[in-house]
Amino acid sequence: MKTVVLKFGGTSVGNIERIKKVCKIIASYKKKKRRVIVISSAMSGVTNELVKKSRLISNNFDKAEYDALVSTGEQASCALIAGRLNHIGFKSRSWMSWQLPIQTEGPYSSSRIKKIAIKELNNYLKSGGIPIITGFQGINSKFRLTTIGRSGSDATAIMIAKFIKADECIIYTDVEGVFTTDPRQYKKAKKITKIFYDEMLEMASLGSKVMQPTSVQDAKLNNINIEVKSSFISKPGTLISDSKKTCSDQIITGISSTKNDAKITIVGVKDKPGVAASIFKPLSKNLINVDMVVQNISQNGQDTDLTFTIKADDLKKTEKLIKQNKKISYKKLSFDKNVSKVSIIGVGMITSPGITYRMFQSLASKKINILVISTSEIKISVLISSNSVKKAVGVLHKEFKLD
Amino acid sequence: MKTVVLKFGGTSVGNIERIKKVCKIIASYKKKKRRVIVISSAMSGVTNELVKKSRLISNNFDKAEYDALVSTGEQASCALIAGRLNHIGFKSRSWMSWQLPIQTEGPYSSSRIKKIAIKELNNYLKSGGIPIITGFQGINSKFRLTTIGRSGSDATAIMIAKFIKADECIIYTDVEGVFTTDPRQYKKAKKITKIFYDEMLEMASLGSKVMQPTSVQDAKLNNINIEVKSSFISKPGTLISDSKKTCSDQIITGISSTKNDAKITIVGVKDKPGVAASIFKPLSKNLINVDMVVQNISQNGQDTDLTFTIKADDLKKTEKLIKQNKKISYKKLSFDKNVSKVSIIGVGMITSPGITYRMFQSLASKKINILVISTSEIKISVLISSNSVKKAVGVLHKEFKLD
Repeated sequence: MKTVVLKFGGTSVGNIERIKKVCKIIASYKKKKRRVIVISSAMSGVTNELVKKSRLISNNFDKAEYDALVSTGEQASCALIAGRLNHIGFKSRSWMSWQLPIQTEGPYSSSRIKKIAIKELNNYLKSGGIPIITGFQGINSKFRLTTIGRSGSDATAIMIAKFIKADECIIYTDVEGVFTTDPRQYKKAKKITKIFYDEMLEMASLGSKVMQPTSVQDAKLNNINIEVKSSFISKPGTLISDSKKTCSDQIITGISSTKNDAKITIVGVKDKPGVAASIFKPLSKNLINVDMVVQNISQNGQDTDLTFTIKADDLKKTEKLIKQNKKISYKKLSFDKNVSKVSIIGVGMITSPGITYRMFQSLASKKINILVISTSEIKISVLISSNSVKKAVGVLHKEFKLD
Repeated sequence: MKTVVLKFGGTSVGNIERIKKVCKIIASYKKKKRRVIVISSAMSGVTNELVKKSRLISNNFDKAEYDALVSTGEQASCALIAGRLNHIGFKSRSWMSWQLPIQTEGPYSSSRIKKIAIKELNNYLKSGGIPIITGFQGINSKFRLTTIGRSGSDATAIMIAKFIKADECIIYTDVEGVFTTDPRQYKKAKKITKIFYDEMLEMASLGSKVMQPTSVQDAKLNNINIEVKSSFISKPGTLISDSKKTCSDQIITGISSTKNDAKITIVGVKDKPGVAASIFKPLSKNLINVDMVVQNISQNGQDTDLTFTIKADDLKKTEKLIKQNKKISYKKLSFDKNVSKVSIIGVGMITSPGITYRMFQSLASKKINILVISTSEIKISVLISSNSVKKAVGVLHKEFKLD
């Protein structure tokens, strides 16, 4: 008998009618003679409401209490789902993270799942029951509740699938799957049927909000096949799996673009060993994430220009940190908040030469100026003016036959 | 160092401002060098909101899941209180029932507290911390959440006080204490400074909604002194304690009255052994609570009239059950929904003769007709027309010097 883990996000259980709908989906798997395990998020809005209360209580609310507070959301939604399944004639019960338990490690509010005890769960599955498990949380070595960060319910589903050795892990959400590019920005965007972990990781970290990169990483590490699909419409979703298992003749799988990037150029900085480290150390200490970096060839063998990108929100803080930095000297600082990163992603580019050329050629044909370039084995990113993003996505989508 | 258990009801933690206020009260005990343990209910409205959701999911919502659902309310309020205390500089943490644990027995939604593990709690108190414990709930032998019925947080406070051997147990609520009679009905009602368990039990079961009778019974059995007071105004409340400990020259402590009673008279019922049992057995089976019972002296040695009172809500069901009852024969059934029970309560009446006479005389002076009488050691109840209740309470309040 196949075992399937079903995870439902906050919007999927956003109100009573949706919970009833979700229970019909769960029942459909049971009718197909599957062993079914359900992981649920809190009803959408509930977590935000609790967070709001914590902020009214304190602008520096205790992290452990924050976790105890917000984890109530999943407890409630799981009880409601189990209650509904019982109502429609299926044996079901809710399972709190501390009842299994799901053991976590690391700090409150951003812990990781370490181990999940599955003995009782297995007995319950054997008896034909459907366990409904709280996502997003666990207990640490002190027997206290911890949460595993926003979207942590995906991580719970993947780890449950790992420990229970599930055959399938299906992430039900409010989108139909992963698209070749943002369908709101570009109407010709198409749903991707199959995508590899590494591609999905690049897509996820570049702004495709379907799944958090850490969850994709977990799935990759544990080799769990994931299907992302909609709980609202009954349609196949996107299968995320290992590139070793399947092959594809698609060179480029998707195109992603960012918003809210900013570019900083430090003009005339002394070109000597360790200068880049001196610049980036205080930024790193202040949790400012530097993304693309490019250093011009030294004009006179002494001075150089250093350009890098950060999130636009961090611009003011970064400017301050550079100006305070006594370890570096430079001529001028310049900023540009009107920049975006556009990336093409695909495992296929490893074996297909000339992709970089085709990308640059396409952008040039539309007179789009490239400010910074960054590449990895399966991704090429370019920084361009934000005004050209839509045009760039369009021409690249067509060039790489994603239309 | 004295140990005090403080319990806050739903209205006391009804919104963020009230939680902040409650934390000031908690802090005031800490400043008085007390060991402080806090028990909290859910924020008022939260539990009802959850119950509403469960009813929309199923008209016969699974009891175990119901308990998992509603117990989230206390978890959230306790986390918020602990978060606030941390914010204002006090060491504090929330404690879920399963973390201690608070062990329960009996059915879901109406379980009883069996045992509370206090080792960790004691260590935490010794370290100077303020534990905030979820009221109203516990875990059963199956490691599942159970609730102990509405107002169960009082029971939690009393049992914590018992197991931790607390010196005081203070129930903070939205009223100033226990009154000689309902202050909304009778303006001369006064707050009672001291009341004995047995008196409070009679007051509680007769409609004084300050505390549930089961909680008073728990306090009596474990000899826990309770003070009931308001979390809204800083005033002394009512001390509930053992009559052996204190003495009082007050004969009557309070007067209570009921609403929604109904009187049934079965006229001309066969007067033979076992007839009353035959009448009351089906009522008992259907959870209809019979309160006052009076049987007239048999007129002819064969027939008698049996009068009893029930809650008016149960009237239709009771009528049906009597008519279906094949074990009894009678001439006529009559009903009266316009009746109320007025009771005077006081341990002092045990040693003061003539109280019954004074009560009846007072009512007669106002031309109030007594329909049924029932007495216990510390209580005399009379059934009268609902229209006369206010007049009756007034004359008795004055007669027994409660004004």
